[in-house]
Amino acid sequence: MQPFSDRLIAAIRGKDSRCSVGLDPRIDQMPAFISRGSACAAITEFHELVLDAIADLVPAVKPQLAFFEQYGVAGMQAFENTVLAARRRGLLVIADGKRNDISSTAEAYAKAYLSPDVFDCDAMTVTPYMGRDSLMPFVEACSKQGRGLFAVLKTSNPGSKDFEDQTLETTGRPLYEKIAGVLNELGEGLVGESGYSSVGAVIGATFPEEGRRLRELMPRALILVPGYGTQGGSAKSAAECFNDDGLGAVVSSSRGITYGFGDAAISRDSFVQSVRERTRRMIEEVNAAVKTATAPLP
Amino acid sequence: MQPFSDRLIAAIRGKDSRCSVGLDPRIDQMPAFISRGSACAAITEFHELVLDAIADLVPAVKPQLAFFEQYGVAGMQAFENTVLAARRRGLLVIADGKRNDISSTAEAYAKAYLSPDVFDCDAMTVTPYMGRDSLMPFVEACSKQGRGLFAVLKTSNPGSKDFEDQTLETTGRPLYEKIAGVLNELGEGLVGESGYSSVGAVIGATFPEEGRRLRELMPRALILVPGYGTQGGSAKSAAECFNDDGLGAVVSSSRGITYGFGDAAISRDSFVQSVRERTRRMIEEVNAAVKTATAPLP
Repeated sequence: MQPFSDRLIAAIRGKDSRCSVGLDPRIDQMPAFISRGSACAAITEFHELVLDAIADLVPAVKPQLAFFEQYGVAGMQAFENTVLAARRRGLLVIADGKRNDISSTAEAYAKAYLSPDVFDCDAMTVTPYMGRDSLMPFVEACSKQGRGLFAVLKTSNPGSKDFEDQTLETTGRPLYEKIAGVLNELGEGLVGESGYSSVGAVIGATFPEEGRRLRELMPRALILVPGYGTQGGSAKSAAECFNDDGLGAVVSSSRGITYGFGDAAISRDSFVQSVRERTRRMIEEVNAAVKTATAPLP
Repeated sequence: MQPFSDRLIAAIRGKDSRCSVGLDPRIDQMPAFISRGSACAAITEFHELVLDAIADLVPAVKPQLAFFEQYGVAGMQAFENTVLAARRRGLLVIADGKRNDISSTAEAYAKAYLSPDVFDCDAMTVTPYMGRDSLMPFVEACSKQGRGLFAVLKTSNPGSKDFEDQTLETTGRPLYEKIAGVLNELGEGLVGESGYSSVGAVIGATFPEEGRRLRELMPRALILVPGYGTQGGSAKSAAECFNDDGLGAVVSSSRGITYGFGDAAISRDSFVQSVRERTRRMIEEVNAAVKTATAPLP
């Protein structure tokens, strides 16, 4: 399989879209027309509709595992269904589970989400705290199977200052920059023809200065930028995570796209239109902000 | 429900056992007599046997989610079965998934693993990197539902030096000590009658000095000590994580207990005996080391 970075960049160019839609199942917030025979059926039906609405608009979707896991085994079945439904529509799938552990346990997570035998996602998010060797099984899976990883660097919450921002004695710089350096090294061997590496980073959309600085420190990394919309991240802020080529990042919005439809009595067609319109608007806002922040788009 | 800390300490005292058995499904390494009709059936059968062997010996089991997730939806069904089987035998269940995220996503993880509605575990492991506010939904779930959390502080792998050990400019001390301070604060309101808090920490068994120091810094925290046996952690090293009352920690071993039986052609009875004997040996080794390292056991 082609490297994840090249597949993502090709899809971004092809659709002129630097956005992904987050899929966070919340059954109680779905439109009334969704049949609620079972948690799995409700989530699957809801996501099939969302995917129909956005398949030609965005390069990727980002299912958030926590929201599936909160529905237990049925939720994980819905996760599998959702991944398959996204892939059938030609969308890349970024499993947002912020997994990690040490040695063979990290291998098991990589197998679960990045191998074709199990959930078969294109990329996943991981946490870096446990060190370089905890990241290696994911890097190896990416290399062997053409998949990608996004390691959490700087999140969009106020508490990201507690540990992520701590200044290190050796460098006089924040911890997340130290981690960025290690990710750069890990990603060197996974730079594709697009010039981007399949070893990426998660940087929240609420801290533009940090985004700019990390963009400079990791010029070849793909950056996943969640927190657009409901978490207070703006297009202008997210645009700092892009390179001058107008590429290198994917901005993600979840609730703002899929649960912003208003009245639960909305019709099926109006729901699809709502999701489609909100996605279009995000894409345009991000494209405009990137165009302003960087050189002319290619 | 009683606080998790009190339930764990009572079980430790009742069984005179400071150990937990890790449940990491690896179907290809199970004895030949395990029927392999499906991944779910094989894992469930294997764990039922292990649980029969150890139910009267240990206070808790620690299923490792990654090893279930690597078998997909069937693996998660086996996880549910395993949790139920453990609870039926009166064992406490620590879901080792090293989960976390921000705001409502962390709430979804807490719901998935700590609420009675979903996987209904007694405690779970979490990662601290994203800060205090990312930990709060877990602390709240612990408080409301009598559950526990163990936040990853210092892991047993060599790479734990990369980020966990980084010296902070403000304190001149390692990052993990900063996190320990925050955990102490978060745990203050959750100290039970046992004198221990339901907000605990994960400290690998391979770094005795760090274990001793963290034990002093977090006198009321329950410490989960994985890495005993196969990861190179010794009973002597693990004993540093105990208080002078001979309590305050749970030492966990996984592969060394459940996959140390040797020949795959082993009989059902011999397998149960093997698991039972290995568990007994670990309990004795840990008790002896704790007795040497601390004041006389109560």
